[in-house]
Amino acid sequence: MIDLSRREAFMTAAAATALAAGGVAAPALAQAATTGQAPGFYRYKVGDMTVTAINDGFAQRPLEGFIRNAELSAVQAAMGAAFLPTNALSISFTTLVVQNGAQVTLLDTGNGDSGAPTSGVWMRNFRAAGFTPEQVTRVVFSHFHGDHINGLRLKDGTLTFPNAELTVPAPEWAFWMDDARMAAAPEAMRGAFANVRRVFAPVAANVKQYQPGAEVAPGITSVAAFGHTPGHCVFMISSGTGKLMFMADTTNHPALFVKNPDWSAIFDMDADVARATRHRLLDMMAAEKTQVHFYHAPFPATGFIAKAGNSFDFVPVQWSSAV
Amino acid sequence: MIDLSRREAFMTAAAATALAAGGVAAPALAQAATTGQAPGFYRYKVGDMTVTAINDGFAQRPLEGFIRNAELSAVQAAMGAAFLPTNALSISFTTLVVQNGAQVTLLDTGNGDSGAPTSGVWMRNFRAAGFTPEQVTRVVFSHFHGDHINGLRLKDGTLTFPNAELTVPAPEWAFWMDDARMAAAPEAMRGAFANVRRVFAPVAANVKQYQPGAEVAPGITSVAAFGHTPGHCVFMISSGTGKLMFMADTTNHPALFVKNPDWSAIFDMDADVARATRHRLLDMMAAEKTQVHFYHAPFPATGFIAKAGNSFDFVPVQWSSAV
Repeated sequence: MIDLSRREAFMTAAAATALAAGGVAAPALAQAATTGQAPGFYRYKVGDMTVTAINDGFAQRPLEGFIRNAELSAVQAAMGAAFLPTNALSISFTTLVVQNGAQVTLLDTGNGDSGAPTSGVWMRNFRAAGFTPEQVTRVVFSHFHGDHINGLRLKDGTLTFPNAELTVPAPEWAFWMDDARMAAAPEAMRGAFANVRRVFAPVAANVKQYQPGAEVAPGITSVAAFGHTPGHCVFMISSGTGKLMFMADTTNHPALFVKNPDWSAIFDMDADVARATRHRLLDMMAAEKTQVHFYHAPFPATGFIAKAGNSFDFVPVQWSSAV
Repeated sequence: MIDLSRREAFMTAAAATALAAGGVAAPALAQAATTGQAPGFYRYKVGDMTVTAINDGFAQRPLEGFIRNAELSAVQAAMGAAFLPTNALSISFTTLVVQNGAQVTLLDTGNGDSGAPTSGVWMRNFRAAGFTPEQVTRVVFSHFHGDHINGLRLKDGTLTFPNAELTVPAPEWAFWMDDARMAAAPEAMRGAFANVRRVFAPVAANVKQYQPGAEVAPGITSVAAFGHTPGHCVFMISSGTGKLMFMADTTNHPALFVKNPDWSAIFDMDADVARATRHRLLDMMAAEKTQVHFYHAPFPATGFIAKAGNSFDFVPVQWSSAV
């Protein structure tokens, strides 16, 4: 059931060979076996659907310059209050696989082989959870930042999910695929435009665009959540009385932006619109006590929102050995 | 690297046979593969030591009658504030394996095959983490409640860790192995006395007793934390500047007893002494900002303590794909 990475498989095979030759490799095998992290997937139910969170590692970035409208000392204080390092932030990446009958829907794809060296573990975790890329029937994208779309296509051009329908927000497509807008974009944004084309241009004819508010797969409805990007959407997953809101990048790390919803990360393309969206959605989730998933919350990246004045708390779910 | 449970191994073998016979079992195999939970282990460093949390599932119990000195409505309010169910509590079990050079020290053992049907997954998780029972050089016990000692010996009498030195708190041994005390014990406690003897009597001559305060393994020092049981101890794990306090049953579920340190679970044998111990240790951990592990905290059961008036908050660590 568990897919070994090539490196792990090699070590195991090498150890087995050495054992056959004289049994001396046992300590090396034990050493290799008892150093790695557990597979980064977490399975839970939303009504009759089965949801699997798949982690794609993390990227480290300096705190300085990350938040546009807060003093570094205030950001460090927020990190300290959460018992996190005060010099750097680990931003993790967690996608969702939603199984609904025969439908296997993937919400965002992780970094593929284009991210930080501490990312790129998505496929190993996805396979460890028992899935194969061929099983994915649909990939639904929240927005077009690289850490959400690069898993669709490797650097060598390989498309990762050969049988999947690709579904993207129409306003996101309109923005990033607009040649005039790309030509007029500031130098710092050219790479992002080029990357969207790298990923999607070869399959552009097959990409299905959805209007924000539309159902994107059975039981999964998109909700406009603009600001982070021009077409950024979130997804309400519903089955019977079970509900889960995939919040995508409505906030970056909850310890910073759920706690301080007025703070703006540099990744928010329209900070004011993103802030209004963040307040609206956090208020709604708190009022309705709906379980949420944040793409950049600590794995397994799911919990609840409690309102506290004009601030909020993110309360992670209790991990369960039972699905 | 990953040990399949017998049931999973059977399903896989059956599916493989069916595939060889005609290839019709692929969907059944896929179904089996994509329904289970991730292995319940989590690896992190404490200085040069490697620590692996191993989960043993959970037991459900009604909230009513669980806390001696709080109204049910207050307990339900605390559960609700933590977004936990208000009718029942899932108490999970998480032990630690500490690797220090060639030493593999296990702190408590889980339920073995004597616990609730939703527990008993410890050995599968331990093997998934790459360990074998033969590798354990020492088992150190915090106290003698069944969920901490039953993993040492299966119901059929089998001793689980054939090469391990067994190390127990001297006052705990003195209490539970005292024949006169057992004879005088109320009926409701007879089972607990009998169970301690079931587990330890066959190896009593080889058990090593430690005095609370003594070093129990290189870099692991016991600390008296009486009250929960007469000899209950916790453990400070130190390596360089790295520290981790194994808090054992200083609290049961943090959402109830870190938040409300005056509350007494029915499992605390001397409620007043346990309460004083709880305050003393939580105060110390908060003041020193020492990372802690609670046996009954949600997996991976590690985090930090923040003081808030006469109350405390448990702040879980951020899960990391890197060890």
